[in-house]
Amino acid sequence: MGHMTAATTQRTRMPPEQRRELLLEHGVRLLATRSLEELSTELMAEQAGISRGLLYHYFANLQDFHRAVVRKAVEDLVAITAPDDGEDLLGVLERSLAAYVDYVVANRAGYLSLVRAANGGDEELRVVYEQARDALTGRMFERAAGEQRIDGLTALGHADTPATRLMVRGWASLAEELVLAWAEDPSSMTREQLIAALAGSLVGALNAVSG
Amino acid sequence: MGHMTAATTQRTRMPPEQRRELLLEHGVRLLATRSLEELSTELMAEQAGISRGLLYHYFANLQDFHRAVVRKAVEDLVAITAPDDGEDLLGVLERSLAAYVDYVVANRAGYLSLVRAANGGDEELRVVYEQARDALTGRMFERAAGEQRIDGLTALGHADTPATRLMVRGWASLAEELVLAWAEDPSSMTREQLIAALAGSLVGALNAVSG
Repeated sequence: MGHMTAATTQRTRMPPEQRRELLLEHGVRLLATRSLEELSTELMAEQAGISRGLLYHYFANLQDFHRAVVRKAVEDLVAITAPDDGEDLLGVLERSLAAYVDYVVANRAGYLSLVRAANGGDEELRVVYEQARDALTGRMFERAAGEQRIDGLTALGHADTPATRLMVRGWASLAEELVLAWAEDPSSMTREQLIAALAGSLVGALNAVSG
Repeated sequence: MGHMTAATTQRTRMPPEQRRELLLEHGVRLLATRSLEELSTELMAEQAGISRGLLYHYFANLQDFHRAVVRKAVEDLVAITAPDDGEDLLGVLERSLAAYVDYVVANRAGYLSLVRAANGGDEELRVVYEQARDALTGRMFERAAGEQRIDGLTALGHADTPATRLMVRGWASLAEELVLAWAEDPSSMTREQLIAALAGSLVGALNAVSG
């Protein structure tokens, strides 16, 4: 009883943005093992211990909540897979891909449901999805202004052309399909083989447009 | 007036299966430049000169008609892209890919809407879509029993393993994304460069799993 009172007191003292953020974090955690359709107000009430009213205090409706959860999940993915400062650029690529593989394995249900929702007619989720793909692949073409460090693609011997951009976009679909299928049934190869296959297929695909 | 009578007479004499087939062919033609949602009974009535009643005589409902149209469109695609009997197996692959590219360019709206519908929750369309992908990619692993002719993958030096199957599945996503994006904006490369890039990316992707 004392604990409940403390929690309630704590809740009322929390600034609104922070409470909204906590609801989103809870949604992201629940989405890891569930589809968007399963992420209902009832589930949030049950799992996060909040009333339906509280959720609708911060989000206009369930779709609005879903979109905010997906946006946050995608921000997490982009952050988790950020390339490090290593000198060996193939190594940088492989570590980023390893983080992507681990993310999809840990969040397969939610990630799959995002991919499907983005393809299935929710235009706002499609925009979020395409922005995420652009963020994930666009980094390969970025150069830190004023720095000597070159990007992965340049290191692999490819210029930033519309043709390489198109191929990287195609390869992103390959990577997504491969990792989702492997996460469902990892019997065909080890995690290390998968990461090597992802990096190697990018190199091979880029050679096919520049050659 | 005489023409209408002739057409009506012709129509009543046509066997039911043949008339159903003609409705499907009309649907497939209309789907080439339209999404499934746009393929309404009204459009069919307007473009095929039939009554809504006639359509519902052959199909239980609009969704049933859509699924039958998609099944037929996919059969066409599989037939059009069938590998020929050439000896140069990379050439066989490239000619099959060329037929795929031309098909997607000519049927972009309908093909895109199939891809989206399959991803967007219509489970029956998802099954049709996955069967089509399996048919298109599975041929690479087929051997004509009793014939000397070997398949493309064997020629390229790769065994039929779960890992190569997984990579071919991933590459099919690359090919679909690449060709749909190129059909929307072909400024990045020529048709010949696209076909070479598709074939080359398959070779490169397979090398990445076998290496």
